[in-house]
Amino acid sequence: MPITVVGSIAFDAVTTPFGQRERMLGGAAVHFALAASFFDEVRVVGPVGDDFGEAELDVLRRRRVDVGDVERIPGGRTFFWRGEYGWDLNSRETLDTQLGVFEGFSPKLSDTSRSSDVLFLANIQPDLQYDVRSQLPDARFVALDSMNLWIDIARDSLVRVIEQVDCVILNDAELRQLTAKPNLISAAREVLSWGPRAVVAKQGEYGAALVTAEGFFALPAYPLEEVIDPTGAGDTFAGGLVGYLAHHPQSEIEHTLLTRAMAYGTALASFNVEAFGTERVERLSGEEIAARVEELEGFTRFESTPLQLLA
Amino acid sequence: MPITVVGSIAFDAVTTPFGQRERMLGGAAVHFALAASFFDEVRVVGPVGDDFGEAELDVLRRRRVDVGDVERIPGGRTFFWRGEYGWDLNSRETLDTQLGVFEGFSPKLSDTSRSSDVLFLANIQPDLQYDVRSQLPDARFVALDSMNLWIDIARDSLVRVIEQVDCVILNDAELRQLTAKPNLISAAREVLSWGPRAVVAKQGEYGAALVTAEGFFALPAYPLEEVIDPTGAGDTFAGGLVGYLAHHPQSEIEHTLLTRAMAYGTALASFNVEAFGTERVERLSGEEIAARVEELEGFTRFESTPLQLLA
Repeated sequence: MPITVVGSIAFDAVTTPFGQRERMLGGAAVHFALAASFFDEVRVVGPVGDDFGEAELDVLRRRRVDVGDVERIPGGRTFFWRGEYGWDLNSRETLDTQLGVFEGFSPKLSDTSRSSDVLFLANIQPDLQYDVRSQLPDARFVALDSMNLWIDIARDSLVRVIEQVDCVILNDAELRQLTAKPNLISAAREVLSWGPRAVVAKQGEYGAALVTAEGFFALPAYPLEEVIDPTGAGDTFAGGLVGYLAHHPQSEIEHTLLTRAMAYGTALASFNVEAFGTERVERLSGEEIAARVEELEGFTRFESTPLQLLA
Repeated sequence: MPITVVGSIAFDAVTTPFGQRERMLGGAAVHFALAASFFDEVRVVGPVGDDFGEAELDVLRRRRVDVGDVERIPGGRTFFWRGEYGWDLNSRETLDTQLGVFEGFSPKLSDTSRSSDVLFLANIQPDLQYDVRSQLPDARFVALDSMNLWIDIARDSLVRVIEQVDCVILNDAELRQLTAKPNLISAAREVLSWGPRAVVAKQGEYGAALVTAEGFFALPAYPLEEVIDPTGAGDTFAGGLVGYLAHHPQSEIEHTLLTRAMAYGTALASFNVEAFGTERVERLSGEEIAARVEELEGFTRFESTPLQLLA
């Protein structure tokens, strides 16, 4: 099933302990689209400025991503983010954010983008997410990401759009903040009570957890000895997860399917962090993804052979 | 195989968002022993003061723990720790530590304690760990825990004893600190290069990861909606893990056996945090443990069904 993603298309300047890039292609919609492109057709909706060139669009086109709804705003500048990571890559500091064309952005979806069965609302202002969600009333599966900023300044709007989606994908700290519940399971159940049927908590280097009405599932991150740049890992994870679901139009989207989708998301994210920006995913193959999913299965499987314990 | 544990026996005063206790039985050796007692005979070595009574010893005796080497120091006071946990239980502040009889403690092992096949060196000064390790030269399996304090002030001593053990069980932050390697896998491989054949990184609410020469394994914590008191979770985890290995004298202690051992450790730890101190584990049954291990298997299993990805 084709997938539409609405979100940021950006230039990132990133410094990690392993190097830096002054201006590289980034943004949630870009990372998501590249990952999801391994599963089905992806349509990207988002604004760029005059500084966004054909070379950047070609990165998406080479993976057959439909860029027809990438809107170029004359005289505008592309969203820009500058950040720096600490020694263990777990802490990151935002040094600069320039909204550029994102200021005053109002998503316009073509008939093609509106006809997708699957929709991913990447992290943008929640009222915009709601507006886009309303333009695909018949979508079979809608997932959403957000961030602490919107919980701080637009929580009511965020809850309103969460009520209209099937799956919420958030960092675990954001899930706690959103619900004011310190316990992950309680927080996830609170969000489920608002309407979604699945909550996915992203836990950074620890992996991700899934909570649905049917149960719980958790998966570690794929173990890497060398992580170069975590930027975009969360959106790449979402792209793998949502892409996998889109690839299964005959299946009901229930717990077991979601567990497999998480594995693909986890595998994709692990490639993303092996190089700066989109560099690794751009040259990724389906065989490499499949191999890591299989490895992940081995890294998490154990047999609970029965045992007589002592009273 | 019988297990000897050397470590603290304590009184804890704990405040969590869910209540407090002014004086409860605690200490690494106690939590470890109660958990390991479900698998085999456990012998506890550690000092207590005059304030430590029969009621406390009976908690251990009721689980058939051998307290013959619990050394009562006349005129001394039992090790005391006071701590408080933050709202999400992930941060904890030590408010008071009174070493009491632990000051000047020199472990004396009876022939019985020295005859154990399995040894757990709970978190005490590393030279004491080394001394005890030397008293069981023929032990089939030796595991060790430590803490940031010893990495700070006695790193050389800690490395010396790590070279003499089979398995290191540390918090993941301590593993990074010990090796000065921010990456978990690199840090674990560094420790493996010193001699141990297994490194277990405890990751708190995220679970635990295992690194051996044969591979990697990770397990989430058992999901609980209500966590009351995390004190002792790490030692209870170690007790389940080491206990499981002790229960398998015929098996070579290799990667697959360790993955199962991690599951038992994880299940035990999940019970420990459901109530203050030892309250929950004291009334625990083998059936409850087995049920959670089986649930954990379900919470982590997925099938990597082959999939044709798009080029």
